[in-house]
Order: sequence, then structure tokens, then C-alpha cells
Amino acid sequence: MNERTVFFLSDQTGVTAETLGHSLLTQFDGQKFRQVTLPFIDSEDKAREAVHKIDALAKEAVVRPIVFSTLVQDDLRSIIAEANGLHLDIFNVFLQPLEVEFKQTATRTAGRAHGMSDIDSYMKRIEATNFALANDDGGMTRNYERADVILLGVSRSGKTPTCLYLALQYGVYAANYPLTDDEIDTGTLPDILLECREKLFGLSIAPARLRQIRKERRALGKYSSIQQVTYELREAKKIFKRYNIPHIDTTEFSIEEISSRILESTGVERRVRP
Amino acid sequence: MNERTVFFLSDQTGVTAETLGHSLLTQFDGQKFRQVTLPFIDSEDKAREAVHKIDALAKEAVVRPIVFSTLVQDDLRSIIAEANGLHLDIFNVFLQPLEVEFKQTATRTAGRAHGMSDIDSYMKRIEATNFALANDDGGMTRNYERADVILLGVSRSGKTPTCLYLALQYGVYAANYPLTDDEIDTGTLPDILLECREKLFGLSIAPARLRQIRKERRALGKYSSIQQVTYELREAKKIFKRYNIPHIDTTEFSIEEISSRILESTGVERRVRP
Repeated sequence: MNERTVFFLSDQTGVTAETLGHSLLTQFDGQKFRQVTLPFIDSEDKAREAVHKIDALAKEAVVRPIVFSTLVQDDLRSIIAEANGLHLDIFNVFLQPLEVEFKQTATRTAGRAHGMSDIDSYMKRIEATNFALANDDGGMTRNYERADVILLGVSRSGKTPTCLYLALQYGVYAANYPLTDDEIDTGTLPDILLECREKLFGLSIAPARLRQIRKERRALGKYSSIQQVTYELREAKKIFKRYNIPHIDTTEFSIEEISSRILESTGVERRVRP
Repeated sequence: MNERTVFFLSDQTGVTAETLGHSLLTQFDGQKFRQVTLPFIDSEDKAREAVHKIDALAKEAVVRPIVFSTLVQDDLRSIIAEANGLHLDIFNVFLQPLEVEFKQTATRTAGRAHGMSDIDSYMKRIEATNFALANDDGGMTRNYERADVILLGVSRSGKTPTCLYLALQYGVYAANYPLTDDEIDTGTLPDILLECREKLFGLSIAPARLRQIRKERRALGKYSSIQQVTYELREAKKIFKRYNIPHIDTTEFSIEEISSRILESTGVERRVRP
């Protein structure tokens, strides 16, 4: 199978083009892709430079490149359109029906998707991130009264990255508390958690997967043994059941999915939108 | 202006639909939007439930809703298509030209965009996040030899959230080191940083903005005074200049943009793709 190069072009970060493109490309089994992002194309020079890169690649390649683009300025879009490849131009397709619907011409100004329009959203995300960091791993600060959700789980079940993603992406205040010997051996949760029981959410994971993750941290010893991992996970599940704590098995999920499913299950409202 | 409800429908998290939709909607000034995400629509029942929600809203609203959707299964898409609204169906538009190009039928299986296909990518993101946390704020661990980039800046210039975003989104190993009195008053950087000078990248910010951010943390005192903030930022810039450290002014940028511009400027390769 010939490797296909996929370009993501943007006058901004390229995250929109990448996210959309990735969703589409995963629909084709067996294809091999090489992905190249060309962000911040905000001048005619940069647009021509991008065309040059795409054409140079196309000349060498057996199959022509795919070009996902989210440029908003018409003059830059028409330069890009000349590049050799299959063009999937996101603004071209969707802006026009929206113009008709709104009876309004799109501003076609670059740089509006992120940026200063939302100082407020920036501040909220930063504050949520600081909250997640300060309330990580059942540490010193336990401002659980300010938390939107408190994640419970054994070591390496994905609590910290999920809390950080919830903060950065959604501005949600997520604390986390590790289930260690204190909870696992007694099957009970401390009062500080039981006082806000409605905020608790559990993370579970398959033993083999947890073992694999723990081995990256400490290859030998009890911590990453299958016996220990199985024991901890079984007891953690009993705790979730005993206190009627909603929980999900994260084995098959990415950080995005875990986060999204937590919002879905708990009904916690996001404080910011992307 | 009548508020317009915008639905983001997905058989996954909805992040793709949200990102694309947000980019498009910011092109229309003066419109008021209420955004509703309906994720994990992976059965006919859920699709019908979504239609019910959209239709109920449409019945009450002055203007019909906008429906961005990224459902891949044809049967679910055809249920959704019956809802009252302007439909912008992302897969519908882009999947077909890709099928022609690849001479291959798309699998149309939900749940491929994220998930287990990339355990490897999950692990890398987790490890990068752990690295960012362990190497935050010039703290205990200084594994700078493993860092892809080391961010420098005064307190609250955006170092920590940027490092975490670089880790979660791109799997990049980003450490950060705060410029405090030690560096600001002497105008020099410690040897541990100078030994990896090519990894250094500076964050700058407008004084008024930094003051606003610092006030959220500590409203009174020298820390958030305009004199102190101006002094620190001026001296930090001198340090960047003295050691020839590339840097950006983050005042106008979101966390996504700062991160993307750092990759662009340094040439650091992302270790994972979304």
C-alpha cells in the first residue's frame, strides 16, 4: 500500500482540520498516512509556500496528497486551491449554507476561532487547571466544596490526566483522590469524601492494562504484579458498589472519551466551550 | 437578535463537531448562540431521542436550530436527518470524495476516531503529562535532558497550562522554569538551563494582562502591582534577548495557539496526533 500524505492547512493552529481529518481517515482501513500540519497561513507568501510544499511532495509521490484546509480568507484559499491534491475545504462547504441561513455574510477574518475574544474563557481554564493541580492525588489542598467532580481510582487508573483534560478543555473543576491501602484494605472511604458523595465518580480499568501501565513506572515488585493489581481493582469496585458511586471502565477509552463520558454521566456542565 | 440553538451530534465525544462548528460560528458577528452537545449517539433509540430534543426546541424557537453532526452509521444519520433544523453533516460531505480517491468504501463504524487503536498514543500522552507535572515550575525533578522544550517566564505567564496542553494534545515533553528574583535581579540564567540552551523558549505577556491574571490569585501587594509586573516583564525580555531565546507574547493567544506556535517556532515534532 502506498503511503498517502495528508496536509492540514490553517490560518490558525490547525486543530480543527486535524480533528476533522483524523475522524475521516480512521474510516479507511489499511491505508497508510503521513500527516503534515501547516499552521498560521495568514499571508499570500505563506499560502504560496504551502502550495510549494504540497506540489513538491505530489511530484515525488505515487498517489496525490489529501489537503484538508480551514482557511477563511478567499484570496488565500484561491492560492491554495492550485496545489496538486484532493482538496477538502471545510469553510468552502459549510460557510455558504450558514450565510444563507443567517442572511448575513461571514466576516472571513482569520483568527477568530480562538484568541482574545475569550479572555474570560482563558481565565476559567487556567483556574480550573490550577484547581486540578492543587487537588491532585488527594494532596494537601482538598477544596472539595469547590469541585464539580471528584475522581476516585487506584494508582495509574487515569485520574490525573482526566482531571487536567476536564480543566483545559471544559473548564471543569475536577479533583482526584487515590484509593490506597487505607481504603482498599478497609473497604471504606474517609468522611471528607462521604460528605460530598454526590460528586464522586470512579475510574476502573482492566487488570492486564493497569499492569502494563504500572510496569512503565516500576517494572518489578508487588506494585505491578498481576495479583496486586487484580486485588486492588476488585476491592475498588466493591467500594464503588457499596457507596453507589457511578464509575466507568477506562480500558477501551482515550482521555477525551473518559472525560466526555464523565460529563455525560454526571450531568456536570462545562464552564467553557472550545 | 434571536438566540439560535446549535446542536453538536456525535457517536463519539462530539469534540470534532464542536471544534468545526465553533470555527464556523465565530465567522458571524452579532449572532447569539446557545450550544448543546449530544454525544455518544450510538443506537437508534439515542438517535430518536436526539431528534425529539431538537424538534422540541425547534417548536419553541423563533429561528430553527443548526445541527452539526459527525455520525458515521448510515441508519443513525438517516434518523437524525428528519429533525427540524439546518443540517451540516460532516461525514456526508467529506466521506464520499475520500471513498472515490481511495477506491475503497469507508467502514462507517463508530468509535474509531479515538480509543484503543492507540494504546501507544495513550501511554505517550500520559507519560508526557507526568513529565510536565514532575518538571513544573523548576521543581524538584529537572530531567531537562529528556525535555523537548523548556518554557521560561515570570509567574503566571501561562507556562504550566501550556506545558500540560503540549503533553495532552501532542505528547510533547515540556518542562517549565519560572523567572524569579534570582534571575530577574541578576539578569542571568542558572547553568542547568544554559546547558540546554537550544531547548529554551520564553513566554512574554502584556503588563496589564499579567496584572489582571495575578490579581485573581492575590489581589493586593507588590505581586500584582503594575510597577512590579512591568519590571519583571522588562527584565525577562532582556534575559531572552541576552541569551538569544526565542519567545512569544501570549497576550492575544489562547492556550491552543501558544502551544501550536511553540511547535512551529522550535520545530519540535509532536509525538502523537489527535
